[in-house]
Amino acid sequence: MKTDLTRQVAALRETVAGLHRELTRYDLVAWTAGNVSARVPGRELMVIKPSGVDYDDLTAEAMVVCDLNGNVVDGAGAPSSDTAAHAYVYRAMPEVGGVVHTHSGYATAWAARGEAIPCWLTAQADEFGGEIPVGPFALIGGDDIGKGIVSTLSGHRSPAVLMRNHGVFTIGRNARAAVKAAVMCEDVARTAHLARALGQPLPIAQADIDSLHDRYQNVYGQRPATG
Amino acid sequence: MKTDLTRQVAALRETVAGLHRELTRYDLVAWTAGNVSARVPGRELMVIKPSGVDYDDLTAEAMVVCDLNGNVVDGAGAPSSDTAAHAYVYRAMPEVGGVVHTHSGYATAWAARGEAIPCWLTAQADEFGGEIPVGPFALIGGDDIGKGIVSTLSGHRSPAVLMRNHGVFTIGRNARAAVKAAVMCEDVARTAHLARALGQPLPIAQADIDSLHDRYQNVYGQRPATG
Amino acid sequence: MKTDLTRQVAALRETVAGLHRELTRYDLVAWTAGNVSARVPGRELMVIKPSGVDYDDLTAEAMVVCDLNGNVVDGAGAPSSDTAAHAYVYRAMPEVGGVVHTHSGYATAWAARGEAIPCWLTAQADEFGGEIPVGPFALIGGDDIGKGIVSTLSGHRSPAVLMRNHGVFTIGRNARAAVKAAVMCEDVARTAHLARALGQPLPIAQADIDSLHDRYQNVYGQRPATG
Amino acid sequence: MKTDLTRQVAALRETVAGLHRELTRYDLVAWTAGNVSARVPGRELMVIKPSGVDYDDLTAEAMVVCDLNGNVVDGAGAPSSDTAAHAYVYRAMPEVGGVVHTHSGYATAWAARGEAIPCWLTAQADEFGGEIPVGPFALIGGDDIGKGIVSTLSGHRSPAVLMRNHGVFTIGRNARAAVKAAVMCEDVARTAHLARALGQPLPIAQADIDSLHDRYQNVYGQRPATG
Repeated sequence: MKTDLTRQVAALRETVAGLHRELTRYDLVAWTAGNVSARVPGRELMVIKPSGVDYDDLTAEAMVVCDLNGNVVDGAGAPSSDTAAHAYVYRAMPEVGGVVHTHSGYATAWAARGEAIPCWLTAQADEFGGEIPVGPFALIGGDDIGKGIVSTLSGHRSPAVLMRNHGVFTIGRNARAAVKAAVMCEDVARTAHLARALGQPLPIAQADIDSLHDRYQNVYGQRPATG
Repeated sequence: MKTDLTRQVAALRETVAGLHRELTRYDLVAWTAGNVSARVPGRELMVIKPSGVDYDDLTAEAMVVCDLNGNVVDGAGAPSSDTAAHAYVYRAMPEVGGVVHTHSGYATAWAARGEAIPCWLTAQADEFGGEIPVGPFALIGGDDIGKGIVSTLSGHRSPAVLMRNHGVFTIGRNARAAVKAAVMCEDVARTAHLARALGQPLPIAQADIDSLHDRYQNVYGQRPATG
Repeated sequence: MKTDLTRQVAALRETVAGLHRELTRYDLVAWTAGNVSARVPGRELMVIKPSGVDYDDLTAEAMVVCDLNGNVVDGAGAPSSDTAAHAYVYRAMPEVGGVVHTHSGYATAWAARGEAIPCWLTAQADEFGGEIPVGPFALIGGDDIGKGIVSTLSGHRSPAVLMRNHGVFTIGRNARAAVKAAVMCEDVARTAHLARALGQPLPIAQADIDSLHDRYQNVYGQRPATG
Repeated sequence: MKTDLTRQVAALRETVAGLHRELTRYDLVAWTAGNVSARVPGRELMVIKPSGVDYDDLTAEAMVVCDLNGNVVDGAGAPSSDTAAHAYVYRAMPEVGGVVHTHSGYATAWAARGEAIPCWLTAQADEFGGEIPVGPFALIGGDDIGKGIVSTLSGHRSPAVLMRNHGVFTIGRNARAAVKAAVMCEDVARTAHLARALGQPLPIAQADIDSLHDRYQNVYGQRPATG
């Protein structure tokens, strides 16, 4: 059993480290901001980015393993300062296998105004199933951010929440899906910003949003529900 | 004959795979969105991107060969979820040898407002011959997108259409020309956006647009009509 | 003598080819748009980019040598479609050793509105000595663009002109200085755009503009007037 | 003793040269604009970028060592034209170990309007402790810029000042911290710009700003106060 866990954690360390490169590739993060985590399937554990470490130095070995209360189980460094929020989400939402946090600029601009992103784009209907909602203002350091994420996203189609005055948290069935949601959140936040900057974008009928979302979640990609 | 077809398809697989790198180079696509296809000249076949595959993994081998009804003829993966639209265009417009689809941000912002891009730039007159038109809202999954592209672009100078609330489709005599149109569409959409953001851009006289378009289509480049 | 000319031209082919990489590095050009040329010092010749060739393929060998009427003297391809404008500038302004043309987005947005860029930035005072002026609308294919550049920049401190509805032309004592002016033109066009987008930027007193320009032209860099 | 100084300076040359790559990575600088310096700890010396040299050529050997009056002590080239401002800051603020200057676009746009950046983002509260202030208009060439930086930042939480019509200066306990402040300054300037472009961002309560700033300065990262 121990060997299985060791292999499982080693593989997730590689995955989580590698996914951080997507955050820089899409310019979602500056300096050491932003973080990705993955739940260790079937365990009360998660793998998360260390705190305040350069993106160039985010090797698999640098990742930190924590329990779902945010206590370090394995790893040389301190875990991300957002560990408590990730842990809260894993405790409250058992279907979630990955969590991502960024301050990506366009999405965070909507968050600074406390405005949900209306669904003006078929790509947003596909991935988010409608508007991308706003969560409450919450201070770091306890469970307030985690609670805000969970209360906003529970029962919502969107895997992304715009935390007020703060940034984006996304969830997914695994870390890769959560990273995809973070990338697409910034992409639609940008296009929606540009669209509204010069006038009023056209709405998409709710029935069309529903149809697009249903199809995308079930048909797109090489395997159903692969994302 | 079979050997010729094999060589022809192998070369187009390389071409189409390589052209996807232009979409990422110019930041026209996020994650796995966007796709390029090429008609196999003289055949009822096309080569197209697989669905939901990372841009890093778009090798020649990963490309999918379909007939012009979108049925897979060769290839391990499922073809792009936009295959039906590409196929419709090839069936309806025999002069078209390449089709490209993106959600590039500035162009899609015009599409979200349902606004054609007025011709304020000589580069737009060159490549598009006037405004870049808007096509109808259409759901994915049948022929509606293809019909919208064809009805908008038939008899129009522009090789690009802004599909409402969705994104850009471009056509060309080959895949490279369609990719060029997609790159230039985003470039002029961006400059037109920036121009109008701070005031009213100046019009170009119709006779000047005509003159620029005629010259560019017949004189520019190393060979006439090379683009 | 012939050997000297051969060496001189070979060196300029390298220089001009290499400088095109600065245009892509700073995102001043899309696809094959934009071009750099250099006068061959002491000769009625210039080295210029070929027409419609990929930036990846712009080797020294691909550059074209023309006389100052735009006739090809050496080179396999057709010269840039903007060759007539470059040639006109070299004929009319003997102090100019390099010319650059781009459609860089922010600068071209000002050009599309026919608005000069006011001097709100010390960096603009340094490099341009005040506002960046607008030139007339002019069609490609004769001397109209060249005349517009020369009439606008003659006696003006600015090495950059915003050609109406078109793009940017810059001049310099050599090709490198002209490329620098093209890079700085887009940089100040962007910052000026962003500044005015949210309010009214503050003016800089004319005496301060004069003082900054004088100092920069005479003191900055490793050698006076190196740029 | 001399050997120690030699080693210390050699290490700082490497550090300062390497940190300039962060300025280009985050697109904070164009052409040869922008500069980083570091105080030599315990010495009346600093290491600074040479003037007007390409970012590609900024090797450790190219860095210039000056005394704190800006006189060259070691190095082949002329020091940055902003050396007097850096030197003034080191003389007046003994706790400062690094200084950075950029014309990064979004931050400089706020500077061109003479507007401080209000604190609408938790990331700004973390790093800057509130608004990012505006300093006076000042001409290069004497102590005016240095005085403007010091008078604005003395006793202020923010390590960044927006010098009117000019650009950004940041300070830090070492050069790396000052570079981080420059990167974060542009990041929050951009998000604040985007937020206000479409409406009125929501304020953060002063007590929350204080709490965020206190926590970030004392808890974040692998070691307290590592940044």
